[in-house]
Amino acid sequence: MMAPGTLIERFRNVRDLTEQLAAELSAEDQTIQSMPDVSPTKWHRAHTTWFFETFVLSPFAPAYEPFDEHFSFLFNSYYDGVGARHPRAERGMVSRPGIEEIARYRHFVDTQMVEFLECRVPAEIGEIVELGLHHEQQHQELLLMDIRHVLGHPSIQGAYGKVPWPSSGPGAPGWIDHEGGQVAIGSLGQEFSFDNECPRHEVTLQPFQLATGLVTMGDVEDFIDDGGYERSPLWMSEGFGAIEAAGIGSPSTWSRLDGRWATHTLEGLVPFDRSAAATNLTWFEADAIARWLGGRLPSEAEWEACAPDVDEVETSSWYGEAWQWTASPYVAYPRFAPGPGAIGEYNGKFMVNQMVLRGSSLATPPGHARRTYRNFFPPSASWVFAGLRIARDS
Amino acid sequence: MMAPGTLIERFRNVRDLTEQLAAELSAEDQTIQSMPDVSPTKWHRAHTTWFFETFVLSPFAPAYEPFDEHFSFLFNSYYDGVGARHPRAERGMVSRPGIEEIARYRHFVDTQMVEFLECRVPAEIGEIVELGLHHEQQHQELLLMDIRHVLGHPSIQGAYGKVPWPSSGPGAPGWIDHEGGQVAIGSLGQEFSFDNECPRHEVTLQPFQLATGLVTMGDVEDFIDDGGYERSPLWMSEGFGAIEAAGIGSPSTWSRLDGRWATHTLEGLVPFDRSAAATNLTWFEADAIARWLGGRLPSEAEWEACAPDVDEVETSSWYGEAWQWTASPYVAYPRFAPGPGAIGEYNGKFMVNQMVLRGSSLATPPGHARRTYRNFFPPSASWVFAGLRIARDS
Amino acid sequence: MMAPGTLIERFRNVRDLTEQLAAELSAEDQTIQSMPDVSPTKWHRAHTTWFFETFVLSPFAPAYEPFDEHFSFLFNSYYDGVGARHPRAERGMVSRPGIEEIARYRHFVDTQMVEFLECRVPAEIGEIVELGLHHEQQHQELLLMDIRHVLGHPSIQGAYGKVPWPSSGPGAPGWIDHEGGQVAIGSLGQEFSFDNECPRHEVTLQPFQLATGLVTMGDVEDFIDDGGYERSPLWMSEGFGAIEAAGIGSPSTWSRLDGRWATHTLEGLVPFDRSAAATNLTWFEADAIARWLGGRLPSEAEWEACAPDVDEVETSSWYGEAWQWTASPYVAYPRFAPGPGAIGEYNGKFMVNQMVLRGSSLATPPGHARRTYRNFFPPSASWVFAGLRIARDS
Amino acid sequence: MMAPGTLIERFRNVRDLTEQLAAELSAEDQTIQSMPDVSPTKWHRAHTTWFFETFVLSPFAPAYEPFDEHFSFLFNSYYDGVGARHPRAERGMVSRPGIEEIARYRHFVDTQMVEFLECRVPAEIGEIVELGLHHEQQHQELLLMDIRHVLGHPSIQGAYGKVPWPSSGPGAPGWIDHEGGQVAIGSLGQEFSFDNECPRHEVTLQPFQLATGLVTMGDVEDFIDDGGYERSPLWMSEGFGAIEAAGIGSPSTWSRLDGRWATHTLEGLVPFDRSAAATNLTWFEADAIARWLGGRLPSEAEWEACAPDVDEVETSSWYGEAWQWTASPYVAYPRFAPGPGAIGEYNGKFMVNQMVLRGSSLATPPGHARRTYRNFFPPSASWVFAGLRIARDS
Repeated sequence: MMAPGTLIERFRNVRDLTEQLAAELSAEDQTIQSMPDVSPTKWHRAHTTWFFETFVLSPFAPAYEPFDEHFSFLFNSYYDGVGARHPRAERGMVSRPGIEEIARYRHFVDTQMVEFLECRVPAEIGEIVELGLHHEQQHQELLLMDIRHVLGHPSIQGAYGKVPWPSSGPGAPGWIDHEGGQVAIGSLGQEFSFDNECPRHEVTLQPFQLATGLVTMGDVEDFIDDGGYERSPLWMSEGFGAIEAAGIGSPSTWSRLDGRWATHTLEGLVPFDRSAAATNLTWFEADAIARWLGGRLPSEAEWEACAPDVDEVETSSWYGEAWQWTASPYVAYPRFAPGPGAIGEYNGKFMVNQMVLRGSSLATPPGHARRTYRNFFPPSASWVFAGLRIARDS
Repeated sequence: MMAPGTLIERFRNVRDLTEQLAAELSAEDQTIQSMPDVSPTKWHRAHTTWFFETFVLSPFAPAYEPFDEHFSFLFNSYYDGVGARHPRAERGMVSRPGIEEIARYRHFVDTQMVEFLECRVPAEIGEIVELGLHHEQQHQELLLMDIRHVLGHPSIQGAYGKVPWPSSGPGAPGWIDHEGGQVAIGSLGQEFSFDNECPRHEVTLQPFQLATGLVTMGDVEDFIDDGGYERSPLWMSEGFGAIEAAGIGSPSTWSRLDGRWATHTLEGLVPFDRSAAATNLTWFEADAIARWLGGRLPSEAEWEACAPDVDEVETSSWYGEAWQWTASPYVAYPRFAPGPGAIGEYNGKFMVNQMVLRGSSLATPPGHARRTYRNFFPPSASWVFAGLRIARDS
Repeated sequence: MMAPGTLIERFRNVRDLTEQLAAELSAEDQTIQSMPDVSPTKWHRAHTTWFFETFVLSPFAPAYEPFDEHFSFLFNSYYDGVGARHPRAERGMVSRPGIEEIARYRHFVDTQMVEFLECRVPAEIGEIVELGLHHEQQHQELLLMDIRHVLGHPSIQGAYGKVPWPSSGPGAPGWIDHEGGQVAIGSLGQEFSFDNECPRHEVTLQPFQLATGLVTMGDVEDFIDDGGYERSPLWMSEGFGAIEAAGIGSPSTWSRLDGRWATHTLEGLVPFDRSAAATNLTWFEADAIARWLGGRLPSEAEWEACAPDVDEVETSSWYGEAWQWTASPYVAYPRFAPGPGAIGEYNGKFMVNQMVLRGSSLATPPGHARRTYRNFFPPSASWVFAGLRIARDS
Repeated sequence: MMAPGTLIERFRNVRDLTEQLAAELSAEDQTIQSMPDVSPTKWHRAHTTWFFETFVLSPFAPAYEPFDEHFSFLFNSYYDGVGARHPRAERGMVSRPGIEEIARYRHFVDTQMVEFLECRVPAEIGEIVELGLHHEQQHQELLLMDIRHVLGHPSIQGAYGKVPWPSSGPGAPGWIDHEGGQVAIGSLGQEFSFDNECPRHEVTLQPFQLATGLVTMGDVEDFIDDGGYERSPLWMSEGFGAIEAAGIGSPSTWSRLDGRWATHTLEGLVPFDRSAAATNLTWFEADAIARWLGGRLPSEAEWEACAPDVDEVETSSWYGEAWQWTASPYVAYPRFAPGPGAIGEYNGKFMVNQMVLRGSSLATPPGHARRTYRNFFPPSASWVFAGLRIARDS
């Protein structure tokens, strides 16, 4: 049994933060899906609510009646075990329910959840609630990534504003030496972690060095000026083919304004800052830039072997600025086992054609990052707040 | 010189009607573009305003300052002569300006227009204003066609409501006999008409009959039940290829609900009514249904030779229920000449790969229809309030 | 009853010409389909044979056994009434049968056909044979158009060689005056014609002038040099959108070689000749060039009202150099009726989204052209030997 | 220095085998590219020749004159360092040179190569020749994979014939136990290996079991009969989305014939054999089938830790029947370094979005397989002779 007070408090805090993040966005802003991978803000608000309704209230709260039967179809993301669902690429076609109805939906579910949690709940249900809160934190970051993309349309280039927590910075240049050998990575499972962080296991590393700071926008500008986007030997074949076909010559958030670079961020189109950490890079770009800098991307084990715990560092280059692409494809740890039922669809079924990112970004809500956390995106993803930290063989 | 009073009054009426049509729609409803041919409601509201700003106030009103310089880029539809423009297929990506800002834009332009029109304006400027009002009436119908499509998404099937004017009905069955010979069609240009309705000219017709009523939903149901969608000899090759590839077996607004047909209309998903006029048919469907009924689509000249003037009939099967596809490709009348400048881009440059429709629909605002009116859409268009009236050789 | 001798002789001549046209092409050349609209040479050879097998031998020749049952599936083009067929866009995937097997197929069918025709055949069967020969002549031209496209791939730019008959030229500049009025167009049906040339009927023309010669490559070069491909007012909206999106700035067969234009023809890449007739223009290009030249495309009725009979002129600008795009969409003549059965699928089902061309080209086999002939292609087709002759209002 | 005799002999043998494999294919067969990933037979014959011309004769043979300057453009596959190249997806558009010209090209280069090799060549050039021979052996297998796909078109389902070497079989059921721990994998580099097999390095394994035999067609049939293609929990999300969207319910080479399964192989459409090893599975299928069988795919290290050397086993389930998909994404071994120059483009630039396969297939030429060999394809590839062997945790 978990102590109910803490969980209720956490529940309220996480749920309120989502609403706070959406508060400044208009109904129009919240409705748009700017590409298939992006979801509208109002969809994030509804889907995270649907999670608690579907996996907690409906199965466990006596006499719970769903707020609207149709929402189960509209706001399921990818849980095949739960039934049919609205197509992902058409989330921007859903004008109704509108944002006021979704606010009512959230309020309705929150009220019932708090009531439900005020009774002592069995540990396994508490764990589902806990999972739902971490799930909602993930969507808080997605909400910010996605609205940045929505507002970044070339015809708009609008601003979201500041996120309500501090960010960090690229960190100081330097190198950490690691002698290699057997290291253990992954979560022991004593504190909350996603299933993909387990089980903890040994890996063998060669001696290596890891940069103490992140690659900066200035580094990327130098890469561009050195012809980096035209030099195929720096790139994976698939990535070079893609930038060649699309005529890409800079990160997707960069544009030329009166002869100078400007970058689109959550705060709108801002002047170029060479000293800032590079972000919104694809894995293909990160991999090429690392090679051009004379290094390589670290493996996720190398990253985890060097990274400090998040509590030790408050903000730093490791957490709170930009996710850091690694050289590791996203696969199961040895003896990984997904959970039973629809909840088990959480992570395992995405373990192909994606690369692992480590750390956290300026958009990751406080309390969500940890050293063993494995984020993952396809190597072509450009709307993630993702940069890199380079490694090299000793 | 036109008498200013009448024009101002008409200006106010037309402009107010647009706002009235949009009044019940939420910001979310007004933002969505459900396919490339559809425009968001708020885009229609802004674009019609941009027309007056661009073609009247900016060139002719002394010291006029545009409401927002950027709108000229965002709300130009297709006038190449006026400069670069936001891509058509991405109108649904524009979250900003929102609907309140667009209301302010309309109010700003309306105030200046009324002020401008209160002075006596030269006839040629009055004609541009007049054109702008007819242009806005076209967009009033497009707004309704488009929002029907937006709300008709299979995951929503929502209702817009009633249009604020009466509609007609399919008319009574029967045949009009026409002996053929030389008939004159087109506008004399004494009252307002679009450039594509001129010049009036003679055509030679063979003797024919034209149905007094429209094809009904019951006729279409019978066509379906008779295997019409599987019988290639009834169809143009291109149309049959398209329905085969997409697995289409009924009009796009029809769906099966508990074993019966239902149709999506502006009033939402409504029970099937065999006696209602068929609408939202493609030209390919209309052409095949006419053939299956033992007739054919009339030419636009045949239609115009038989149709009553709109003033004679109030509402009737000819006007106010469904546009009627004809057998005529949309081409220039002999000696057609487009107007000079960007205004001349109005109609002429669309004269290929489109078919003419005659009459008007339930969504056509009162006062907009006339006997010589030539509406046009590609033969695959399925979101038009378009049906058919059959003809046959005598 | 037809006199058998003449028909057999014509049969042999037409069939032999097809083989003569293919004789110089390798098995590799004959196998490739360079885009969905193009068919491999060996497919043309087999399909024209299939026509006689399917519509003459199988139904009418006692005890005829098909050469290979599978060919009925492989070599049906679009006759839905005859059964399932291999997909059009995958004709280039058919390695087997090879060209030797197809030569045997042709020989087999020819032998049986000649044997069959040596008996006196009823007139209605003779008419099908006659149709089959005209059909094969059409495919002779398609074979040449298509192989020109196959060999015109930028990585090859190869030569087919000369066609075994004379071509004409652009003709002398000048104007024919026509006073307009009632003219009759279409075939009386006394000599062979396709169903779409009937019935002969009256149309009303305004006074006009028609150029005596064709637009030349020099005219097109001047159009390019005058910025014609960048000036939207010269173009239909659909056509301008297409060239803008694809970055097109010249006809598809033109390329720059050492700073000068060269054009790809059946004889390979040849030096640019300003005085030659322009060909391989799309309808969009032809329409824009006519407008830029201060004229317009003629209607098909205007063309037919001025054109000489083919027998009067041997070769001339009217026939034997380039098909001439008209302003007329391809629609049925009044009271057009397609024939019964699969043969009736010949023309009628293509009467939408295509434009009429008149005259004939350098690739049209002798004896195939006539004044009432209606060729048709979509306005975007660029691999047709098609140019234009301009008209203007008097 | 290598002894010239052996290398010349190997050169002749490998080069001759390619011609032997193509000998029974017609010019038509050799020309077709049935999808972008497939190359025409004649392209394989020319490209492998181009390799020796480009990397051996041109740089090292005094006074060598290329056979045809244009071939360097046409037959470069992906070596950006060597210059521009014909687009991969359009290899089937190249009718010229034909197969006779390509035979002459091979003969020309072979003659010069043998002459060149008859002089003693420095070891580093000998290594390039050696690489060229292994490269050609890879293309021998690709040639067979590709022509199987070309002939497997549903409208043809033709036969290539038998490969001129023995194949193996699925092996006997049973399990190998492995206790895990530290194992070394990769090549020591004493015998020929590709760069991606190096360096040899230690990895940590958990205890596991590996099946002694391959999954059979009967297993796959049972998977189908048990609803395997409809059960999303068995699949990676990306794979399930793809089969759902395309309506796939069996391996791509399977078809129903008179109510029974048949499979397309190099010998044409053959009756279904439950006891044969499954092949032409995608990684998505292999992964799902392994899960359904209660196991999982092995990692490549697990495979290498258990597999016998190829010389020990002649043919067996390990080599000579079907490549075996592993759970390992294709990434660089620690401290991997690609070679310098264009040769260095061989493997490294494909190390993303691909999965490793181990063993060899019925189409792998004798002498090409080895225990450390790392084959790789995208997880959606269905035209590889690829099956699986399952693993499970102990």
